[in-house]
Amino acid sequence: MTYKVAVAGASGYAGGELLRLLLTHPDVQIGALTAGQNAGSKLGAHQPHLFPLADRELLETTADNLAGHDVVFLALPHGASGAVAAQLPDDVLVIDCGADFRLTDSEAWDRWYGGNYAGSWPYGLPELGDNRATLRTAKRIAVPGCYPTISTLTLAPAVQAGIVTPDVVVVAASGTSGAGKSLKANLLGSEVMGSVSAYGVGGTHRHTPEIIQNLGALTTDPVTVSFTPLLVPMSRGILATCSAPLHDGVSAQDVRAVYEKAYAAEDFVHVLPEGQWPTTASVLGSNNVAIQVTADADAGRLVAVGAVDNLTKGTAGGAIQSMNLALGLDEHIGLPTAGVAP
Amino acid sequence: MTYKVAVAGASGYAGGELLRLLLTHPDVQIGALTAGQNAGSKLGAHQPHLFPLADRELLETTADNLAGHDVVFLALPHGASGAVAAQLPDDVLVIDCGADFRLTDSEAWDRWYGGNYAGSWPYGLPELGDNRATLRTAKRIAVPGCYPTISTLTLAPAVQAGIVTPDVVVVAASGTSGAGKSLKANLLGSEVMGSVSAYGVGGTHRHTPEIIQNLGALTTDPVTVSFTPLLVPMSRGILATCSAPLHDGVSAQDVRAVYEKAYAAEDFVHVLPEGQWPTTASVLGSNNVAIQVTADADAGRLVAVGAVDNLTKGTAGGAIQSMNLALGLDEHIGLPTAGVAP
Amino acid sequence: MTYKVAVAGASGYAGGELLRLLLTHPDVQIGALTAGQNAGSKLGAHQPHLFPLADRELLETTADNLAGHDVVFLALPHGASGAVAAQLPDDVLVIDCGADFRLTDSEAWDRWYGGNYAGSWPYGLPELGDNRATLRTAKRIAVPGCYPTISTLTLAPAVQAGIVTPDVVVVAASGTSGAGKSLKANLLGSEVMGSVSAYGVGGTHRHTPEIIQNLGALTTDPVTVSFTPLLVPMSRGILATCSAPLHDGVSAQDVRAVYEKAYAAEDFVHVLPEGQWPTTASVLGSNNVAIQVTADADAGRLVAVGAVDNLTKGTAGGAIQSMNLALGLDEHIGLPTAGVAP
Amino acid sequence: MTYKVAVAGASGYAGGELLRLLLTHPDVQIGALTAGQNAGSKLGAHQPHLFPLADRELLETTADNLAGHDVVFLALPHGASGAVAAQLPDDVLVIDCGADFRLTDSEAWDRWYGGNYAGSWPYGLPELGDNRATLRTAKRIAVPGCYPTISTLTLAPAVQAGIVTPDVVVVAASGTSGAGKSLKANLLGSEVMGSVSAYGVGGTHRHTPEIIQNLGALTTDPVTVSFTPLLVPMSRGILATCSAPLHDGVSAQDVRAVYEKAYAAEDFVHVLPEGQWPTTASVLGSNNVAIQVTADADAGRLVAVGAVDNLTKGTAGGAIQSMNLALGLDEHIGLPTAGVAP
Repeated sequence: MTYKVAVAGASGYAGGELLRLLLTHPDVQIGALTAGQNAGSKLGAHQPHLFPLADRELLETTADNLAGHDVVFLALPHGASGAVAAQLPDDVLVIDCGADFRLTDSEAWDRWYGGNYAGSWPYGLPELGDNRATLRTAKRIAVPGCYPTISTLTLAPAVQAGIVTPDVVVVAASGTSGAGKSLKANLLGSEVMGSVSAYGVGGTHRHTPEIIQNLGALTTDPVTVSFTPLLVPMSRGILATCSAPLHDGVSAQDVRAVYEKAYAAEDFVHVLPEGQWPTTASVLGSNNVAIQVTADADAGRLVAVGAVDNLTKGTAGGAIQSMNLALGLDEHIGLPTAGVAP
Repeated sequence: MTYKVAVAGASGYAGGELLRLLLTHPDVQIGALTAGQNAGSKLGAHQPHLFPLADRELLETTADNLAGHDVVFLALPHGASGAVAAQLPDDVLVIDCGADFRLTDSEAWDRWYGGNYAGSWPYGLPELGDNRATLRTAKRIAVPGCYPTISTLTLAPAVQAGIVTPDVVVVAASGTSGAGKSLKANLLGSEVMGSVSAYGVGGTHRHTPEIIQNLGALTTDPVTVSFTPLLVPMSRGILATCSAPLHDGVSAQDVRAVYEKAYAAEDFVHVLPEGQWPTTASVLGSNNVAIQVTADADAGRLVAVGAVDNLTKGTAGGAIQSMNLALGLDEHIGLPTAGVAP
Repeated sequence: MTYKVAVAGASGYAGGELLRLLLTHPDVQIGALTAGQNAGSKLGAHQPHLFPLADRELLETTADNLAGHDVVFLALPHGASGAVAAQLPDDVLVIDCGADFRLTDSEAWDRWYGGNYAGSWPYGLPELGDNRATLRTAKRIAVPGCYPTISTLTLAPAVQAGIVTPDVVVVAASGTSGAGKSLKANLLGSEVMGSVSAYGVGGTHRHTPEIIQNLGALTTDPVTVSFTPLLVPMSRGILATCSAPLHDGVSAQDVRAVYEKAYAAEDFVHVLPEGQWPTTASVLGSNNVAIQVTADADAGRLVAVGAVDNLTKGTAGGAIQSMNLALGLDEHIGLPTAGVAP
Repeated sequence: MTYKVAVAGASGYAGGELLRLLLTHPDVQIGALTAGQNAGSKLGAHQPHLFPLADRELLETTADNLAGHDVVFLALPHGASGAVAAQLPDDVLVIDCGADFRLTDSEAWDRWYGGNYAGSWPYGLPELGDNRATLRTAKRIAVPGCYPTISTLTLAPAVQAGIVTPDVVVVAASGTSGAGKSLKANLLGSEVMGSVSAYGVGGTHRHTPEIIQNLGALTTDPVTVSFTPLLVPMSRGILATCSAPLHDGVSAQDVRAVYEKAYAAEDFVHVLPEGQWPTTASVLGSNNVAIQVTADADAGRLVAVGAVDNLTKGTAGGAIQSMNLALGLDEHIGLPTAGVAP
């Protein structure tokens, strides 16, 4: 069976990556492509790398234009997904790449986002807890944020195994595509190249409660997250450096064993061989996550480093992985298992 | 039928790109991986992005280790292919990514490379002249150089149609992967980032005679090529800015018509819509070439700009495209038609 | 004597570079800083690198605010300089970094810029023709465009010596700061990094007539210029690859001799030792130009490559060099003679 | 008085930056330039940006060649400084940019470096403790490591004021020049561009004990440091994200007050206005440090971010600042107070 798929927000970075991957997916047919202010123009003007779809016209993002599809991906600005989703039939698989349906706690929503709380959907991170089973029957899926994806996967084994006190520190260096195509002065090439900066410092970034929510589900201890995102001079990729106080007597070998066991059955999450540390280039364009972990005996901390492509596994790849599960397909279909390097 | 494929030089950039693409090719099985000084180590230590092959051991590059395959790719340093190829049976498809078998003129070889002239093999650029037909029956294939690939494709329609005097000027800006993994001070990140430089200036780059050879086959006029390569701060991609004196009375529209007609039947070469100019990002990781062309009436010159990924269509993708032809497969199999952007 | 200097357009890239240099100039006092839409805010919000001036308030760009200074630099959007300059007294030294007063031919102005032709001012390129003498008595100075600065200096010796036919081809790779702080999608870091593109192709870039004007003053032959600018992934710097048909019998050594003689007395223009080719990193942040030249006997062309920092010698440094001359100061004061590398 | 200055290790990155700065220092004369394997060649071949010194010949690094100078800078590989320094007269000011004389604890030396412990010299970080007074009479100075410089300055006010528990976490993103000109595969442009990676993870980087030593001098509490350096795609600059458990009841405003007071009298250390976070571009090429700080009430941590140019204030600028003090000169002479941006 071939599934007909629509992408709302096709002219943005997440939409473009969805289409790049869907083009190689054997079980889907790419249907309507919609956009906001770019509606009426051709996709090729906004996504020149998507040659096979260059002549496709961008429609307006309306329920009518999205009707008649088996799957609808929403890659819209924050806050726009709820209204669109509400107009789509219940039996259509709707996958939201935005933040609207990620938080299960309405108070967290009020504090971090505000406005109407739309509720929460099954969370599109199959590697976490029981999510894989839930996703297999889901008709609505919230794709995780890019930072929560890599922060959670990098810390989850340690938190779940109870070898750390879950007061975690995450410093995550991200390429600029995570900020989207927004025309802001600090995202200009001239500002970004040759420079690193921090933003959303001091627990103010909106992905913080999502990381807390994810880790909190793995432990009965109270979880705190000190999260600092960095903007670094590259287009794609996140490297998350994560640490937490390590319980006494847990060695580096113990830590490795916990991680290797946790991800032994996961095909997209790779605990690297001892001594090899992740690079974002190694996962670029793929659905892979690369993780390495060690123990710092002097500082008494576990240090884990994870790499992900924010647009692939961090957004569009993760979304398609979840789609595969929800459609009853092999989870891996259409998802690159090798990065594009150098 | 599944073809068993070996890659000699698997720890280098060309070898890595061959493997990235072969991993998704449905009709091949990846056999022996060989290397020079890296023999004995695992592939994952050199190509961390090739997760599915991380545990593969690199063998020495010997005829014995390459025996028993249907296809052997040679991605070896210049001058090393001849000896290896001579030991492989005639019925094995041997595809050389090096320069050893590209030049048809032994005098050109003597001048530009020197040492023993190994002869020439069918030239792996299907879009040029009668090459496609030749490649369908070839057992030995010489993959074009990356600069000749894009320079030739960007200029060929104009030269073949006789609308320019073939005294061409090519300035080609390349990412650093074209120089391979050589440990040279000028290739260090600290030297490359934030800087552009020219090298091989004044007709001294070895790809010059190859461009002349290609264009010379399309015209009876004498061909001259002023070729200047630039090193720019990115890993992949070449943008070739090509110009030549335009014959009187040829308009920009005429020029476009020539190019659109020349590539109407080519699926990997895209003459962009009017007003849209190529970017290397748009072809990154794909087998595509993007071309735009215009006429400068004041200067009396045709100006054509072409973009290619030096490692994909410029080397490994072109090699696999030729392999597909030689094996009687669909030419497009296993070759990405969308770039990885942004 | 200390000269009081105002900078109009202080929140932009050219304005910022003027201030960076003026901060170390021993004979000036930095007076009014003005801006357009950024008026009312502090300089530190826009130019965080200018720590000593961080608390300076940006005034509106009006004649009143610019009054009472010995020198006024205009770093304004194209077309805005004329009206401001007209309101400034004749005895104030006014130095325009924009295009408004560069072209001596009103027809060229009409074709390339349009709107009211404001006339032309002495041209702030001391190394060209008799400009240095003219600048010593000037009260109004037009700073050259960044591309014309490097293209002219890289080609002038050959054109003036008559060793080439002045049908020149210039391909100039530029960092993104040349495009200013404009909020355009193609200037976003995500678009620029990892990509090279051409723009203004086919003789459509507005710097073309300025290059023709400069070279035309050095020869009685008709001059044509095929000019293609490239956008490369770095913030600063231009590398111009220039070529022209070389007259018969002129050797590489002859060419070098012409260049070495032409620039023997110029302290900011460096003809590099034989075999060493320019890099933009080597001139970054300095007022230097680095040039290398050779002859391609096969193609019958002279090939000259020049590097400049578009913001320093290409704009602000050139402006201050001209200011020094007009104020009767040593031409070199306040101008870095070493680049910032790596 | 003019001081005659020699630079040992003039062909490396630290040596090059020393010379760039010394060229503008009014009180010094640049004397002997020495090198290791590059001895015998001209400086211009290795430091093409240092135009005024291009023709200087590199001598061998011997006591004889370094004799007769008032100041000798050592910018040598780790372990090489001790032997050279021992041969220089006591009344020569010797400033070592290497690690040899930084650690005051011989056991720490044995653990982290090993080999002969050469002792410790006055520590060239004037902003820390009583160092400024000590440096005014020093004849031997150990320049801090680049990571310790920024980590210490970013954390010192909080540790000294006793508002945090000094169990600090530092994640420091560095440009590649910090690794020097070593020909290593992971430092190639092709590997670095488009990628972020961590190295020396888990408390294994040699700068860790130096940070502990610096912070330990400010508190009687035991100090632990979890230090992770990141390699990011740029040539220069370090952004250090530092955090530590904040004592109860200390507000973000309290924290700011502590930092503003601590650096009120320091001209090179800038606590940025509230809401403005440091970028490495803003300090590039200057002797400045930019710091911002806040409190994360949810996580109970102080978060401070500091930016420095690893080659300027982080090495060569810091060295010259210390030289100025030791020579009785104004501390600021010859040190850029504005960055080179964009």
